[in-house]
Amino acid sequence: MVKDKKLKPELASGFIDRKGNELILKDRLIEIIKRNFQLFGFEPLETPGFEISENIGKFLPDEDRPMSGVFGFKDDKDWISLRYDLTAPLARYVGANFNDLSKPFKRYQVGTVWRNEKPGPGRFREFTQVDADVVGTKNILADAEVAILLADTLVKCGLSKSDFIIRVNNRKCLTGILEGLKIKNEKQIINTIRAIDKKDRLGDEGVKSLLGKGRKDESGDFTKGVGLDPKQIKEIINYINTDIEFFREAPDASYDGISKLYDEGIKELTNFFNNTRVSEFRDQIVYSSSLVRGIEYYTGTIFEAELLFKVKNKKGLDIEFGSVGGGGRYDNLVSRFFKNDAPATGISIGLDRLLVAMQQKENNNVENIGPVVICVFEKNQFLASPGKDYDITAPYYKILSMLRSAGIKSEIYSGDGSIKAQMKYADKRNSPAAILYGENEAKLGIVTIKNLKAGKEASTKIQNREDWRKNENIQETVKLEDLVNEIKKLL
Amino acid sequence: MVKDKKLKPELASGFIDRKGNELILKDRLIEIIKRNFQLFGFEPLETPGFEISENIGKFLPDEDRPMSGVFGFKDDKDWISLRYDLTAPLARYVGANFNDLSKPFKRYQVGTVWRNEKPGPGRFREFTQVDADVVGTKNILADAEVAILLADTLVKCGLSKSDFIIRVNNRKCLTGILEGLKIKNEKQIINTIRAIDKKDRLGDEGVKSLLGKGRKDESGDFTKGVGLDPKQIKEIINYINTDIEFFREAPDASYDGISKLYDEGIKELTNFFNNTRVSEFRDQIVYSSSLVRGIEYYTGTIFEAELLFKVKNKKGLDIEFGSVGGGGRYDNLVSRFFKNDAPATGISIGLDRLLVAMQQKENNNVENIGPVVICVFEKNQFLASPGKDYDITAPYYKILSMLRSAGIKSEIYSGDGSIKAQMKYADKRNSPAAILYGENEAKLGIVTIKNLKAGKEASTKIQNREDWRKNENIQETVKLEDLVNEIKKLL
Repeated sequence: MVKDKKLKPELASGFIDRKGNELILKDRLIEIIKRNFQLFGFEPLETPGFEISENIGKFLPDEDRPMSGVFGFKDDKDWISLRYDLTAPLARYVGANFNDLSKPFKRYQVGTVWRNEKPGPGRFREFTQVDADVVGTKNILADAEVAILLADTLVKCGLSKSDFIIRVNNRKCLTGILEGLKIKNEKQIINTIRAIDKKDRLGDEGVKSLLGKGRKDESGDFTKGVGLDPKQIKEIINYINTDIEFFREAPDASYDGISKLYDEGIKELTNFFNNTRVSEFRDQIVYSSSLVRGIEYYTGTIFEAELLFKVKNKKGLDIEFGSVGGGGRYDNLVSRFFKNDAPATGISIGLDRLLVAMQQKENNNVENIGPVVICVFEKNQFLASPGKDYDITAPYYKILSMLRSAGIKSEIYSGDGSIKAQMKYADKRNSPAAILYGENEAKLGIVTIKNLKAGKEASTKIQNREDWRKNENIQETVKLEDLVNEIKKLL
Repeated sequence: MVKDKKLKPELASGFIDRKGNELILKDRLIEIIKRNFQLFGFEPLETPGFEISENIGKFLPDEDRPMSGVFGFKDDKDWISLRYDLTAPLARYVGANFNDLSKPFKRYQVGTVWRNEKPGPGRFREFTQVDADVVGTKNILADAEVAILLADTLVKCGLSKSDFIIRVNNRKCLTGILEGLKIKNEKQIINTIRAIDKKDRLGDEGVKSLLGKGRKDESGDFTKGVGLDPKQIKEIINYINTDIEFFREAPDASYDGISKLYDEGIKELTNFFNNTRVSEFRDQIVYSSSLVRGIEYYTGTIFEAELLFKVKNKKGLDIEFGSVGGGGRYDNLVSRFFKNDAPATGISIGLDRLLVAMQQKENNNVENIGPVVICVFEKNQFLASPGKDYDITAPYYKILSMLRSAGIKSEIYSGDGSIKAQMKYADKRNSPAAILYGENEAKLGIVTIKNLKAGKEASTKIQNREDWRKNENIQETVKLEDLVNEIKKLL
């Protein structure tokens, strides 16, 4: 098996490893989120990573080639794909189990999704999403329910109410305006949406170019525009700059009557805000005319959670962060599978992004405390001890069992190193204490506890050799039966 | 988006959906396992689903074609594969981060793995594994540590000590015997191991054929044999039938001196049992000469957890269950990446199998209680209420907030149905109660609680129309401020 030429232990491009505190925080967030989703009456569901490619289609933004952006695999019968989100598989699930489900059907799912995109700095091809959806109702109360769930979950995860807003719009308002401007071609509509979706990054001028003849970026690459006329472009730019708080006495009347679709969108938004304004998140859930969301399948209410504090990268520089979550109504996705009407609405939280943001909040600092390490004196003691005049093997396991029964992380050192190496190991593991139990201790029925936590604190103040010696000796001997209490004091 | 031809909402072959109680139990088991792995001093690690194909190699049993059995994709630069276990990615991780890690390095990982095998009844292509490994030590104490961890974790998950055994052997014993029998060709050795690995299914006669000329199965398919001579076969069959409790005063002496490798294996086993026999799992961790494990990379101690109770399928029939977990020592896997010596040992729990087994233990019945449902009287009340002489919208959210603050799963009904449909919905969700708050209640500052739990219990005893009417009326009105206490009583 061992070959002369050694392999290079590289990660596949666009993928990362996670460990330590980051992973402990991730697990904690997932637990909080699941518990909150259950509190809101959502049931768990777990669909598999692979789906029949045709069933999940391809509704990603910025991708025009069919099935690019996903990992597809030719199976015996069909092409199968790794899911790129949790919504398309939900539609398949509902399609297959419609008659058995409660109406409405409320489910949450935590799962990995994959996108076969070009990796770049901070752009990964695998991430964890957390979704909650309500399927089988056109009731706008369900849209309000998931928006409130999104806000409430962010707070439960540790954000304060002033840390974020949830921007809300209705797809019908924008498409209604486009309809009023005689833009009815489906391709033009979706490309207009995608152009507006880039407003945050390109500004009004960039959007204007994309709506018109096209845009050349810094690298010289040219993106063909939608080809609208100047009057149409002016109206659209005007509309997306009317961001106002919406839950006033009446919605902005400037576009009333421009089309039936627009009026319907306004009616839905009014209904939506009639719910959210009496919830706890009146001030967090706000109207935003420039919010469009790039995903094609949305049909009504759309929303996006945006952080109001700056997120920094590892070098301490602000990063362009985007949203930590969002969602909306998609009334036609499930009905691809049958003739029943299955309108739906939901949210998705990008857990990896949320994790990055939460690591920067002070109240989320997790310290990864290592195990108490029971040191081992003789390398082959376990083989040797039967022939000795004292038994050391059994007491090691007795000590271990005492500690673990008390819920204290602990282990017998299982490496091959000397006592010095064992101390170095305990230090690297961030262990609170090491336990010494040798021939002496065995004969007297005592244990020696080396307080590594105190040692570490003291070592930051070491001035001279004398201090260092004191620090070396932060240890005490206690009776075996007092061990657990002494360790607990020290934790 | 909506096409005339409807899609068939089928699952990809070999994949399943999970939901409800099963998933709640799965989450609970994962939580218990993670907590226990931490208690034993293991740190969390999360490697990605994809690895560079060459890096994870292919060490699955029963597969001779290179890279079959895995899902591979041609990437820009390399072929990448979905991991088929968590051990090969760990080796890659250690290879990449060796200098930064504690020695030994103890990590656990919970993750999905995929195998591109022919699906069959009960054979899936995606499952969840839970692994714990100790890397960087040859100390047999580490083998004992992970075997004890496996036993302890099964008990924490809800098995009793009499529910399982952990069979243990050492690869060096078998290969030592083969060496003594002059079987030294690597291909012959691995094929002999794979033949013995089938003992449970094919019995001694089946193994004999596979070690000799070959075997024709029921379908008429012929598997070519290893081609050993009758004396060699006899000795091997003899050895694998010497299953005895090992931790006696001295190991069985029948093969002593057959080869240096065998003697080394016996020495390691003695050392191993010197540890486990003073642990809490003296009686669960037992020697088994017929245990070989089909995976090629093992080099020393091997073990496998076997359930002692019969596991039944959904039709109540006993199923051939196999092991819920196992593992062993693999001293050469990590060193494929560098010249350092990186011996390792670990365990893997098949979570999906454990889940099936745990669902059959009575103490693991999880009841999936639904949310308290706040019923909605008028379809468009939220639009309508501002014009009415009473406000109903705000109190709905107030009731909801009261319940949720008390940790009670609850929701405002978000569908489009009548009160009757809402009751049917609450029933389907297994809700403990429905809350009625209409014009009357709003004016009097009270709520009506419909006790669905009592209703359900009563309905099993319904004899006549009169009973039914009583049952329909298991409801009470309480002051708004008493609501939470009343609901708590009822839960």
